[in-house]
Amino acid sequence: MNIRHKHKAAFHKEYGKPLVIEDVITPIPKDEEVLLKTISVGICHSDVHIWKGEASWPLPMIPCHEVIGRVAVKGDRVPENVRIGETAIFYYAVYTEEDKYTRRGLTQHAKTMKHYMGGLQEYILIPHYKFLVNADGLKDLPAAAPLGCAALSAYGAVKKIRHEVEPDDYVAVIGLGGLGIFALQWIKTFVPQVNIIGIDIREEALNFSSRIVKVDELINASKEDPAKAIENITRGEGVKAVIDFVGSSETLSTYIKTLSPLGIYVLVGLAGIRGLTLPSSFTILDLECKIQGNSMGSLPDLYDVVDFARRGRLNYIDVVTKRWRFNAEEINTAFKELHEGKVLGRQVIVFE
Amino acid sequence: MNIRHKHKAAFHKEYGKPLVIEDVITPIPKDEEVLLKTISVGICHSDVHIWKGEASWPLPMIPCHEVIGRVAVKGDRVPENVRIGETAIFYYAVYTEEDKYTRRGLTQHAKTMKHYMGGLQEYILIPHYKFLVNADGLKDLPAAAPLGCAALSAYGAVKKIRHEVEPDDYVAVIGLGGLGIFALQWIKTFVPQVNIIGIDIREEALNFSSRIVKVDELINASKEDPAKAIENITRGEGVKAVIDFVGSSETLSTYIKTLSPLGIYVLVGLAGIRGLTLPSSFTILDLECKIQGNSMGSLPDLYDVVDFARRGRLNYIDVVTKRWRFNAEEINTAFKELHEGKVLGRQVIVFE
Amino acid sequence: MNIRHKHKAAFHKEYGKPLVIEDVITPIPKDEEVLLKTISVGICHSDVHIWKGEASWPLPMIPCHEVIGRVAVKGDRVPENVRIGETAIFYYAVYTEEDKYTRRGLTQHAKTMKHYMGGLQEYILIPHYKFLVNADGLKDLPAAAPLGCAALSAYGAVKKIRHEVEPDDYVAVIGLGGLGIFALQWIKTFVPQVNIIGIDIREEALNFSSRIVKVDELINASKEDPAKAIENITRGEGVKAVIDFVGSSETLSTYIKTLSPLGIYVLVGLAGIRGLTLPSSFTILDLECKIQGNSMGSLPDLYDVVDFARRGRLNYIDVVTKRWRFNAEEINTAFKELHEGKVLGRQVIVFE
Amino acid sequence: MNIRHKHKAAFHKEYGKPLVIEDVITPIPKDEEVLLKTISVGICHSDVHIWKGEASWPLPMIPCHEVIGRVAVKGDRVPENVRIGETAIFYYAVYTEEDKYTRRGLTQHAKTMKHYMGGLQEYILIPHYKFLVNADGLKDLPAAAPLGCAALSAYGAVKKIRHEVEPDDYVAVIGLGGLGIFALQWIKTFVPQVNIIGIDIREEALNFSSRIVKVDELINASKEDPAKAIENITRGEGVKAVIDFVGSSETLSTYIKTLSPLGIYVLVGLAGIRGLTLPSSFTILDLECKIQGNSMGSLPDLYDVVDFARRGRLNYIDVVTKRWRFNAEEINTAFKELHEGKVLGRQVIVFE
Repeated sequence: MNIRHKHKAAFHKEYGKPLVIEDVITPIPKDEEVLLKTISVGICHSDVHIWKGEASWPLPMIPCHEVIGRVAVKGDRVPENVRIGETAIFYYAVYTEEDKYTRRGLTQHAKTMKHYMGGLQEYILIPHYKFLVNADGLKDLPAAAPLGCAALSAYGAVKKIRHEVEPDDYVAVIGLGGLGIFALQWIKTFVPQVNIIGIDIREEALNFSSRIVKVDELINASKEDPAKAIENITRGEGVKAVIDFVGSSETLSTYIKTLSPLGIYVLVGLAGIRGLTLPSSFTILDLECKIQGNSMGSLPDLYDVVDFARRGRLNYIDVVTKRWRFNAEEINTAFKELHEGKVLGRQVIVFE
Repeated sequence: MNIRHKHKAAFHKEYGKPLVIEDVITPIPKDEEVLLKTISVGICHSDVHIWKGEASWPLPMIPCHEVIGRVAVKGDRVPENVRIGETAIFYYAVYTEEDKYTRRGLTQHAKTMKHYMGGLQEYILIPHYKFLVNADGLKDLPAAAPLGCAALSAYGAVKKIRHEVEPDDYVAVIGLGGLGIFALQWIKTFVPQVNIIGIDIREEALNFSSRIVKVDELINASKEDPAKAIENITRGEGVKAVIDFVGSSETLSTYIKTLSPLGIYVLVGLAGIRGLTLPSSFTILDLECKIQGNSMGSLPDLYDVVDFARRGRLNYIDVVTKRWRFNAEEINTAFKELHEGKVLGRQVIVFE
Repeated sequence: MNIRHKHKAAFHKEYGKPLVIEDVITPIPKDEEVLLKTISVGICHSDVHIWKGEASWPLPMIPCHEVIGRVAVKGDRVPENVRIGETAIFYYAVYTEEDKYTRRGLTQHAKTMKHYMGGLQEYILIPHYKFLVNADGLKDLPAAAPLGCAALSAYGAVKKIRHEVEPDDYVAVIGLGGLGIFALQWIKTFVPQVNIIGIDIREEALNFSSRIVKVDELINASKEDPAKAIENITRGEGVKAVIDFVGSSETLSTYIKTLSPLGIYVLVGLAGIRGLTLPSSFTILDLECKIQGNSMGSLPDLYDVVDFARRGRLNYIDVVTKRWRFNAEEINTAFKELHEGKVLGRQVIVFE
Repeated sequence: MNIRHKHKAAFHKEYGKPLVIEDVITPIPKDEEVLLKTISVGICHSDVHIWKGEASWPLPMIPCHEVIGRVAVKGDRVPENVRIGETAIFYYAVYTEEDKYTRRGLTQHAKTMKHYMGGLQEYILIPHYKFLVNADGLKDLPAAAPLGCAALSAYGAVKKIRHEVEPDDYVAVIGLGGLGIFALQWIKTFVPQVNIIGIDIREEALNFSSRIVKVDELINASKEDPAKAIENITRGEGVKAVIDFVGSSETLSTYIKTLSPLGIYVLVGLAGIRGLTLPSSFTILDLECKIQGNSMGSLPDLYDVVDFARRGRLNYIDVVTKRWRFNAEEINTAFKELHEGKVLGRQVIVFE
């Protein structure tokens, strides 16, 4: 593969200001490192948080962590089975040392774990070949970038509820953005025997999600009282599980009360990161329910996710609603639209 | 057994005012009901909450739910194996209909469940013989009343963590009152392979608990920063489980951060019943920990608890630090001292 | 209800000889007992075992334990909610004392448990009302008798595998008689995300089962090598779970080798009761698989089973292929046909 | 480190014949390979099986797989954190490709897994550095070789029972050789709340084991009926778990009947490798117990095992009863004595 000495990268230079594209030196991978030629990157809500300065990430920085690319150059300790030209999705919770968590595949809890940004450039240096999951055989490579974070996080969340539900129980999914739609699909994959209630405050998100995956009930929480709606739908039994992709005090306070005894509430969304308040601990105590945090998912999970996608078990293609090109104007529009809540599903920046 | 037509009962008549002892008609049990002659009752923190008017319980009412007594009269559908004169501990989460929860022993979640008060009188009418757990053979019957709630709640809490811990992991118990000391003992019974950290803000509670059960570490959270102390003790690894018998915003916010990844936080205490606030949801998400509510325990659990006590596996006797007689003065002193935080362990009112 | 002083009952008098119908005194229920007027009884393989003298059951005896009937007379300790005239399915693993198993719903392991026979008569005395599960609302009452054993046993077996399988895993069901067909349905209910392989040596059983429930693959083990067929179907991955309703040395030896690592083999069938031989323990050790015994199921499970049937979630009606009347000729034909392996699905004797 | 061009290796040349020591060329590690200078090797029962020709292993071969050594030479893809001179225990279930099992730490089920022999030589070529677990800090390095198989297998077996037992339950360990004694210790580590029954047919094995770890009961199965003894000890309740390091038809038939309902029987020993027979499947069905196979353990487990040993939590030193030198006479005596059942605990061949 012919590698240019310099390539273009998009930088956050000031919080909330437009990104700027500049030339940077293309690094040469050494040891276990791999240089990946970017195919596409997805834009995640956390990228907007960082851009807005809400995550106190030091600037300047190259944003984005949902990356699919092509192996361009290998360090000298990268083994044969990693081939030049193969496509790969990047597992961005990188770590430098194996430990008791990583050895059992719980890589997101590695003691030396750091979220690795820097996707928004033509070439990205991957710190170790083991963080690359082969993506050959996927039908739509540019649409596959969100498998590395959005689909993966939703996968972990659904795995946390799958042994907690009985046939015909109800499960509620709060927030039908990209992650929520992936979650609906994982529920269909892992526990098709339950009834799904999809909830959002945007009519267009409800409509969009139902074009990708049919669920049993949809609630527009801005138009009707969702707690009451759930009570009617479940005939007073409540839901056995909630997966909350908003994660605010409001959603937690509203939906934890819709649980049936011994239910589970999986918290995924970041809205409560500046504070989470419940009017009372009584519901938690009385129902003996649990609030279960969900992080981004593990590296073995990412292998599973890509495998489900490859076998046609996961519709990741239609989740991508916008494909922008890698130039300053389009990138900045993409960030702006996500920030303004105008995006349905997921959007990607395509390089190739 | 010779039953008096009338007997004495203690009433809450006004929130926060002294209890009053009055004569009431002794009821005659019918069908599956049983009349129990009270041996002793324990006073629970929730009795104080009710007394203070914080639980909006209608008045007048006869308080207390931790009851041990003797079978005095049986309804005509009570079978032979329930014998007149046998001693029994009352399971106070009574229900009127068997359902999918009760059939599997999860009685605290019965759809028709109601907490049954009325222990503070010489005779108490038990609505169904199945709520009585035989207590014959217990060494110290008057001290055994708290088995029915304090020991039982702590039992359920410890069972929730026991499969979540590895040998030599650390477990923190917050609040070393009656329940906390029972929890320390249950940890020694169920997971003796872990290290226990006992935490309280009262030096005398720390001292008292350590006379009953030796733990690995004690922290006085009013004298040192408990989060820092835990970090030192665990060499930065954190605790794998917290059992919180306070349950306030402050304890939750402080101790959830001391968890290691995938840890469990069992919430038992009622302090957060008027509101529970965390400065951020980030810890829950990042650690993928769970906050697990704990209610009072099940009827099968109560059988286990009494059995452990009978086999000498649980020191319930020394947990009882005060034995009051059933008269207005002593009862009111008991309530007052509990309310003022002066009580170590548990106190009982003895009738016989 | 008008109860006759005498009623007709069918007796085994000599092993292997025809059953004889005789008059017996209709008992009067006392205490918690209930007299049930028989609607229908199912004939189970174990009834044939007893009839043949293979289970050393003392004679004379009234066979059959799959019973549905109508409450005719109540003992004086039977509560109001058991109503005269209501229909009920009998849970035949009766016990006389509650213990640590029964309190948590594991009734089949009650220390005082005994299998209760005697269904083949017009009235049957039920030793305690708690062994009756209300059946009102079932569409086809005479066809519902097998819910009490065949559907229940299959239910327990499927519950043992449901948390052991991943989406798209293969599960094999060996023996597509009455229990096997119920198992196929329970798999569709509990783990619809797996692929099912149905296996029998009778072409007509394979055909019959596929009229009731569609599975992914069918193997006639008398026509092709089933191990090879499974290897082809699963592309060498093997099955994650086997449920074996034959339970012979041959089936165990054949199918345990088709498991993938950490697989589960649920043993239900009685064929190995006189001896079970494996050519080697190596497969068990190497795969770290488990052989899990399955007994008849619990009383709470029976409530679930009846509830699924009532909601139309279980097709128990078409499983019943023959409905005999209660007379000596038809009963004896029924036993003979079952013994000769001529029966598809399940057959019942109808009284009403 | 100064490496000799040739080194000495012990060969099986004919089944059952003495081993022969010969010179072989010392290999030069390439890529991820590591050359280990042997400190000591343990002799396992499976080595005797191979030697006797019972495992149809092709000859000639260099036996033994329990190896501790020192890193002598590194291939060019071995990273810095593997240091020349560090000590390491070899994980001998090597594999060539990562797959869905290895990524979650279930390395013993890797699709490309092969047991790697060849320990009985002065230098051994390790096919990948990841199969080496650092052993620095262990007090007695030559005694630590059996951590790589004997202690590891016992570890896996005990982990399989640890969530299946309640406080004060009984657990039986059959066969108190090296693995059995490790299992007793792991039980003390993981589930100290149970009562342990140790069983052997050799009085000296019972005596030896009790010098290393105190258990609640010891049974000499050649002197008394062990089933009866267990019934007396457990007052008819039976044991909740059996770990069987013999694994013959006789032990399985005897001890499976000593289980209580829902018990677990972990099969570890190889004696049933040529056939395993039970007189009846009835016990398995009736008790709904499970027979769980146990293989050698995983690579993450080996990290745990070494860590427990390093922290002084596992007495591996006194388990080693004989330390032979690496010469033909001593090696052949070691094999002979193990074959004749004369060995207590474990024996090692020491090279340094």
